[in-house]
Amino acid sequence: MPQELAQLLLNLVKEDAPLGDATTEAIIGDVEVKAVVLAKEDGYACCLIDFAEALRVLGLNANALKHDGEYFKLGESLMVLSGNAKLILVIERSLLNVLSIILGVVKATREVVEMVHRVNPRVKVAATRKTIPCLRSLIKKAVAVGGADTHRLSLSDALLIKDNHLAIIHDVEGAVKIARDKATFMHKIEVEVSNVDDAIKAIKAGADAVLIDNVTPTQLKQIINTLEALGLRNKAIIEASGGITPSNIIEYAEANPDIISTSYITMKAKPIDISLEITT
Amino acid sequence: MPQELAQLLLNLVKEDAPLGDATTEAIIGDVEVKAVVLAKEDGYACCLIDFAEALRVLGLNANALKHDGEYFKLGESLMVLSGNAKLILVIERSLLNVLSIILGVVKATREVVEMVHRVNPRVKVAATRKTIPCLRSLIKKAVAVGGADTHRLSLSDALLIKDNHLAIIHDVEGAVKIARDKATFMHKIEVEVSNVDDAIKAIKAGADAVLIDNVTPTQLKQIINTLEALGLRNKAIIEASGGITPSNIIEYAEANPDIISTSYITMKAKPIDISLEITT
Amino acid sequence: MPQELAQLLLNLVKEDAPLGDATTEAIIGDVEVKAVVLAKEDGYACCLIDFAEALRVLGLNANALKHDGEYFKLGESLMVLSGNAKLILVIERSLLNVLSIILGVVKATREVVEMVHRVNPRVKVAATRKTIPCLRSLIKKAVAVGGADTHRLSLSDALLIKDNHLAIIHDVEGAVKIARDKATFMHKIEVEVSNVDDAIKAIKAGADAVLIDNVTPTQLKQIINTLEALGLRNKAIIEASGGITPSNIIEYAEANPDIISTSYITMKAKPIDISLEITT
Amino acid sequence: MPQELAQLLLNLVKEDAPLGDATTEAIIGDVEVKAVVLAKEDGYACCLIDFAEALRVLGLNANALKHDGEYFKLGESLMVLSGNAKLILVIERSLLNVLSIILGVVKATREVVEMVHRVNPRVKVAATRKTIPCLRSLIKKAVAVGGADTHRLSLSDALLIKDNHLAIIHDVEGAVKIARDKATFMHKIEVEVSNVDDAIKAIKAGADAVLIDNVTPTQLKQIINTLEALGLRNKAIIEASGGITPSNIIEYAEANPDIISTSYITMKAKPIDISLEITT
Amino acid sequence: MPQELAQLLLNLVKEDAPLGDATTEAIIGDVEVKAVVLAKEDGYACCLIDFAEALRVLGLNANALKHDGEYFKLGESLMVLSGNAKLILVIERSLLNVLSIILGVVKATREVVEMVHRVNPRVKVAATRKTIPCLRSLIKKAVAVGGADTHRLSLSDALLIKDNHLAIIHDVEGAVKIARDKATFMHKIEVEVSNVDDAIKAIKAGADAVLIDNVTPTQLKQIINTLEALGLRNKAIIEASGGITPSNIIEYAEANPDIISTSYITMKAKPIDISLEITT
Amino acid sequence: MPQELAQLLLNLVKEDAPLGDATTEAIIGDVEVKAVVLAKEDGYACCLIDFAEALRVLGLNANALKHDGEYFKLGESLMVLSGNAKLILVIERSLLNVLSIILGVVKATREVVEMVHRVNPRVKVAATRKTIPCLRSLIKKAVAVGGADTHRLSLSDALLIKDNHLAIIHDVEGAVKIARDKATFMHKIEVEVSNVDDAIKAIKAGADAVLIDNVTPTQLKQIINTLEALGLRNKAIIEASGGITPSNIIEYAEANPDIISTSYITMKAKPIDISLEITT
Repeated sequence: MPQELAQLLLNLVKEDAPLGDATTEAIIGDVEVKAVVLAKEDGYACCLIDFAEALRVLGLNANALKHDGEYFKLGESLMVLSGNAKLILVIERSLLNVLSIILGVVKATREVVEMVHRVNPRVKVAATRKTIPCLRSLIKKAVAVGGADTHRLSLSDALLIKDNHLAIIHDVEGAVKIARDKATFMHKIEVEVSNVDDAIKAIKAGADAVLIDNVTPTQLKQIINTLEALGLRNKAIIEASGGITPSNIIEYAEANPDIISTSYITMKAKPIDISLEITT
Repeated sequence: MPQELAQLLLNLVKEDAPLGDATTEAIIGDVEVKAVVLAKEDGYACCLIDFAEALRVLGLNANALKHDGEYFKLGESLMVLSGNAKLILVIERSLLNVLSIILGVVKATREVVEMVHRVNPRVKVAATRKTIPCLRSLIKKAVAVGGADTHRLSLSDALLIKDNHLAIIHDVEGAVKIARDKATFMHKIEVEVSNVDDAIKAIKAGADAVLIDNVTPTQLKQIINTLEALGLRNKAIIEASGGITPSNIIEYAEANPDIISTSYITMKAKPIDISLEITT
Repeated sequence: MPQELAQLLLNLVKEDAPLGDATTEAIIGDVEVKAVVLAKEDGYACCLIDFAEALRVLGLNANALKHDGEYFKLGESLMVLSGNAKLILVIERSLLNVLSIILGVVKATREVVEMVHRVNPRVKVAATRKTIPCLRSLIKKAVAVGGADTHRLSLSDALLIKDNHLAIIHDVEGAVKIARDKATFMHKIEVEVSNVDDAIKAIKAGADAVLIDNVTPTQLKQIINTLEALGLRNKAIIEASGGITPSNIIEYAEANPDIISTSYITMKAKPIDISLEITT
Repeated sequence: MPQELAQLLLNLVKEDAPLGDATTEAIIGDVEVKAVVLAKEDGYACCLIDFAEALRVLGLNANALKHDGEYFKLGESLMVLSGNAKLILVIERSLLNVLSIILGVVKATREVVEMVHRVNPRVKVAATRKTIPCLRSLIKKAVAVGGADTHRLSLSDALLIKDNHLAIIHDVEGAVKIARDKATFMHKIEVEVSNVDDAIKAIKAGADAVLIDNVTPTQLKQIINTLEALGLRNKAIIEASGGITPSNIIEYAEANPDIISTSYITMKAKPIDISLEITT
Repeated sequence: MPQELAQLLLNLVKEDAPLGDATTEAIIGDVEVKAVVLAKEDGYACCLIDFAEALRVLGLNANALKHDGEYFKLGESLMVLSGNAKLILVIERSLLNVLSIILGVVKATREVVEMVHRVNPRVKVAATRKTIPCLRSLIKKAVAVGGADTHRLSLSDALLIKDNHLAIIHDVEGAVKIARDKATFMHKIEVEVSNVDDAIKAIKAGADAVLIDNVTPTQLKQIINTLEALGLRNKAIIEASGGITPSNIIEYAEANPDIISTSYITMKAKPIDISLEITT
Repeated sequence: MPQELAQLLLNLVKEDAPLGDATTEAIIGDVEVKAVVLAKEDGYACCLIDFAEALRVLGLNANALKHDGEYFKLGESLMVLSGNAKLILVIERSLLNVLSIILGVVKATREVVEMVHRVNPRVKVAATRKTIPCLRSLIKKAVAVGGADTHRLSLSDALLIKDNHLAIIHDVEGAVKIARDKATFMHKIEVEVSNVDDAIKAIKAGADAVLIDNVTPTQLKQIINTLEALGLRNKAIIEASGGITPSNIIEYAEANPDIISTSYITMKAKPIDISLEITT
């Protein structure tokens, strides 16, 4: 909702100008100006329409010039704004900081997705819950715009039984069964395993998905082969995760899981260089 | 303050588990467990004592094992925790997400600072206001722990007359004079310039610092030489900025400004890989 | 988390005593008292442990006397408290208002679940998103404690394509396919239909569940029979919903869907009569 | 204020769609639609004008079709809306949940008030502080629109010395006198009593009102007769309360107190069935 | 509640140190210190116990040394604190700013009350709603501790029909009657008038109190005499208000109204000079 | 930003009408009215334009009639408003309370500044951090509009090493050196001293400013003379503070420091009497 994004921007301005913008208040009068948000490197647009709407809630005129997923080149304008100069200047950095991060996620995601699809078009890339604090919704949207699967959005929307859960209850089958019993029918259940035996147990116990964590591409291949041999390959979604980066993701893709998840696209994406330029 | 950091963690948990942790609530009972935060790569500690205190506010036992700036190796424990398993599991990702980013900033900062000091020990590296949203205070502390200068913390604590201000008022000298007149005596005034003429005007008008933006190392050297020749070199702090990364920072350092600021250390730092492991 | 529930109680006290408790401030001194929360009708406990913990965060001593799901009779004590009299008195109504609602949901849920299970033990009762504002998490927990399925917790954790969505895109199959393509692999997709043709389309298009809305028990039976005849009965979860109350739920249960959802248990449950009595 | 109600709706949307509306985001584009809020049973309007205004603050067009207290029949439209489909769909449930509760309170209140007025038009029905959490203002307005007295809105606006206060200070007269001395002249003082002796003490000590709690209609009648005989009947407002429901309220009304208060109208009112239908 | 006051202090610290305390962080280590809050002029204590409790919530040891209303002299200690030096230093100014204002209100109130009681002990002094923003509860408590009547705490707890209401509805009697009909029986109704005719109308229409605004002491005396002659003097509480300060309040007191209200005690009270001194 | 100020007003209304405005809701219908904010004593305008903009955010028409610093006389209109009568009436007191305080600060500041400039035009008057809670930004703006220096806005924007810091580290020179080393190059460092020796140490150690606290005008003169004799007078800004009021400020001004700071202008300024009058 535009009001929510406007509230986020207000919070960021509160962080960036807790007691006002000393410079602008000292030297800038009540003038109306125009400005553009400029790309200083290539990328793909995301949420520009939403941010323009949020800026309008905050009292500026703003129009997005690129729709979600649209390619832009260095030097292109992404958004045009106009309004009170002081207001534009106090929002500038907050807007750019958050936008540059989001655009970075889209671009990194897209690059990784293309890398994977070149070798195996049926494998989906997915994000994780390793995201920049306070920006979860936006980051997950950027992941989707970049062509990857968001994975669960939070701890509230699906069950993922992880190593730390199993360190407490020590029983893959039991965990899946309790989960199946206690979870709503609308939530899927995934289990994190690191070997084929636990993968088998999890699938037999009724897991919807199995996350195979921290194995080599070769081990992944072997696990998938074993599951295939046992007729379990299509009983659950097979996700590979753990230490996967652009430098090794192709090998994982070739092992042919259903999903490859990586925090690289959310936590190691480089923010896109953008700037706001007053044009009047 | 510990209460503020506890509030940040609560907000992050609210984002990561808005309607609870479906997995943990389904399969984990009211057991007490122990856990450690483990380093999965080398780095330097930061804010661990503060986070341990914040976790105690939230009802856990927690102790930091490294003080600010202390080196840690892959495999070392950074913090020990104990308490209700559900509480630890629901906080886990929020804690790790923010901590991994902070530790990443410390490490990147330290690397850049060392790189600069090897060629020119008198030059200070500084951060900018390009920081991860919602984490300004923590990021700035990480910059300091990493050995760099935080630069101004926000728009409220010093004046920096930038290109966008000058795009409106078109007069370097005038801007500095108005700023001098309007700003409190406790705030410094810096001016962003991109050529030697403006640098001269700014210094003569009384700027405390001059940010020379988007020039090559050679141009920077020339500007500094000119200022020296005019007896202006020590009348203001000379800061170089704009497009400075580890790949070119040494050349800027050799040009001998007082400060080199770069958003690389806050926006392109790679989060440090850490994990929380239940040990009981 | 205890801190979150403590915050909810503080917000309710803010609503119930925005400028303090005029009576208590006028006539009660700083005395320590004991108190009990008493049941004034029979019911089943829920969240007492959580509330006791939240009250401890707020500075009172509090202990729950019944665990989740435990039966209690009129006259039994549910919780004991002690501490500053003013603090207990100012929190009293806020605590009781929210607790009585939650306990009401548990009891109504349990009654409906038992009613259904008497005629068809394999049918699950489920709640909907029709819940008391601001209490979603607690209400959903009460539903679970009462023996029913929570259904999705919010709009963020699963897809349910409803009549209003179809009023815009007019194409059941298309909607399911787009949803399948855009949704994360961790989210299930359900479609609301009101006739057998749409049910067939939804299942064939890959819906995980079909919500059959506003049909009579007889129509429900016929739809399920048709799906069975077409070999589609077990391809998706069959949920019945719409106008289902204790007076007709048995007939729906006999039609043998997988899930019967009803807002009766969350919106028409009668709050349980409880009181807080100062005992010292 | 419209901004406050808009904020309440935003908070409810935050609860109902913490990380967005997965369904709508997947399948609905940026289309403009029209919608109506439809009554699915008879009732009386309340706050529709306020909600329409709040929806306009949130960026929708909205117009109320019924003014406060106006009767509506099953099938009638209560409000028309238009605007972005995604925005309408994400707000739908939050709006309906709160509105259905409010309308339920109006209807239950009105029914109880009419029941009482049929036998005794001079007796006022009043609500209590037993209200749905987070909705105090709206619930109290619904009580007023339904024809009853709101009673005090919170602990801050009048003094009511209750059994728990007396359990601490054990002295009705003393309590009233201290209260009289400490309270502002703008606040009334009421005392909860359960027998005629305490009623007499309270009135003689200067209470503005006496709440006769948990007595039978016969006992109430006797207490009122005794007060009359002592010339105290009109020295204070006589309120009856405790366990009063539609099934026994007529007998209380016949005993002729000034006020009969009951939480039935706020806590046991059935929400009115309403729905939002996309019409375009 | 202590948690509420702790929250207020946290908000003030957020205002006073939005990005931390630059001085303390630079030069103070993690040492434990002791401190006292010292009076630098005479006064009367208020809320020290509450602030000490709030400070304990925030992690400090704190003990109040004076109870509400207790006299203190220049040089006396009001509170002792101990704990982390950084925490004490960052809270110092926030604590002192709010406390000095409150203590100022107590002292000014007490002086005005004594001035009035010397000439007319039966007249009560009252505050108004002209209070320092964000501190309403504390200010009203200070008024009470100072010996005056708080008057209504907010717009929600009693009705006061003022000149601006009458500028809209132009009918004193009508206004009182509508108010009587619409207001809860627990709220009093007062009417602001500026001449005897309106006072008579208001009382005859059933107002509980009449605020005689902006008249001279002589006019006030005449109005009261007229009411007395008409037998209306004791039918309503007579409040004098408007432009009343220590320089003329004695004359108003001699006119013998029931209440004299003045914003002097809340808006023109001089904050008491207090300081926090580190003693270790 | 207008949204921030609108939020402040909403918070104040929440404090002043937590459960609505009982009077207005009872007797005022949905009428549109006009109103003016009237000066009831002379003063200088401040923030009227900002408040008018904030009121527009809240749904009213509002126009400021005086710009910052403009003189106004008793009886003049400061702002015109129009809109829903209930909305104007519920905001009235919140608006007036905050505005009257701000205008009071402007006037007191201006009077003190003029007093000082009459005897020594080169001395600047400055505020301190002793400000009304929750209004820091507005108060500091009022100080600036009144012609004084705001001094640091918060603990985050400059370093001021005070007596309490020195009570812990006992070493003026050391403190300045650590501060110099740890603080950002963009922050100034000031040291509070109470004798000439410490002033000398602070300046020699590199302090940007020295606050000479709690000395008599004569002592101040002597300290300045000594610094002059040592050639240190112009190495740092000399600020006098501590117990300075209109009654003695002229003597301090004659001692010729650079800055005289006093909390008198923020904490002892008398609020300007203003009112809002419905004109239709």
